[in-house]
Amino acid sequence: MQRNSNISMAVIRRLPKYFRYLSDLSEKGVNRISSKELSQITGFTASQIRQDLNNFGGFGQQGYGYNVSGLRDAIASIIGLDKRYRVVIAGAGNMGSAIANYTGFHSSGFEVLALFDTQEELVGKEVGGKPIRDIRELGTFIDDHRVEIIVISTPKHAAQGIADIAVSRGVKGIWNYAPVDIRVPEDVVVENVHLNESLFTLSYLMKEKENI
Amino acid sequence: MQRNSNISMAVIRRLPKYFRYLSDLSEKGVNRISSKELSQITGFTASQIRQDLNNFGGFGQQGYGYNVSGLRDAIASIIGLDKRYRVVIAGAGNMGSAIANYTGFHSSGFEVLALFDTQEELVGKEVGGKPIRDIRELGTFIDDHRVEIIVISTPKHAAQGIADIAVSRGVKGIWNYAPVDIRVPEDVVVENVHLNESLFTLSYLMKEKENI
Repeated sequence: MQRNSNISMAVIRRLPKYFRYLSDLSEKGVNRISSKELSQITGFTASQIRQDLNNFGGFGQQGYGYNVSGLRDAIASIIGLDKRYRVVIAGAGNMGSAIANYTGFHSSGFEVLALFDTQEELVGKEVGGKPIRDIRELGTFIDDHRVEIIVISTPKHAAQGIADIAVSRGVKGIWNYAPVDIRVPEDVVVENVHLNESLFTLSYLMKEKENI
Repeated sequence: MQRNSNISMAVIRRLPKYFRYLSDLSEKGVNRISSKELSQITGFTASQIRQDLNNFGGFGQQGYGYNVSGLRDAIASIIGLDKRYRVVIAGAGNMGSAIANYTGFHSSGFEVLALFDTQEELVGKEVGGKPIRDIRELGTFIDDHRVEIIVISTPKHAAQGIADIAVSRGVKGIWNYAPVDIRVPEDVVVENVHLNESLFTLSYLMKEKENI
């Protein structure tokens, strides 16, 4: 498969959307789809869809369109969903527990091995069938289990320290829920989920509509 | 305060970030800051920061910079954080419960009044001090309490139906966690949190770094 390393973040963020729409179509038994039909479903223009997919070596055929399950599988492979990831969660509070309980991540190849917390009353318990361990065991655990992704759902003051430990042990991906920017070396990826910012965007847009 | 209704989504999405950085600075006792210093903290260029803030009627003074708490309060007001919102949560599962338990929303003016669920064994219980009610009471409850925002954290097949009920009762903002696109009239805002898509972006970027 051809890859183009200059793919913009906008295209990259659309890939999981294509994957979702194609998965839904596939579940409904749809076998093939034109870029025009895909445009009606996704809200992206047909030309943008063709352009996006051409970045990865066009999948469509003139007069036929796209094979739904074939395209879905190809995008899954581009995203990296054809492999399994070993994941730990730092912070076993509400958000950490919700993530541990969410079965959808597991079925997509993200296997949560354990949660970690500082609170003694949590350590030894389980969430979603996964053990909560003492945060002081984090480094050793990452080593022993070759953990690749850490979810950080700690209070913000703890986030950078946790990230430093994880990165020093070879973790390459951080899914950060703490409302703070995490500094990492160039070979590590941080993807932020800042729920407050999303909620504030909602309130801004609501206010804007009222004013119109 | 001057408003410009042609403000791009990119600027709008940076506003909550400015608010976060300025809140952090204010907590640390910083009184004033230049756009250059703000650039170092935020990673945005100084010129972008000045441009962004000029959309709302420039707050800085030449040779002085920005007054931190003043600018933070002005942005809070632009975002709409100077008012209170009445919120309900549809779906009292892991994610709905995590949101109900998160005290940060309350302190920002978003008051969760109740959760709603279809599961009989949940109805009557409490999460984060808020009652879980029968989903069939949703419409009446929205009427009675003039609810403005609904959080949808239901399975995807239920999301559109819930949204339709909420919108028909006058809800103007939907914070949607279900992995599905929700259709609403023009005067209603939908802000999506698609956690799967965020996780898949992380895995794509990790894969890309490996390949470089």
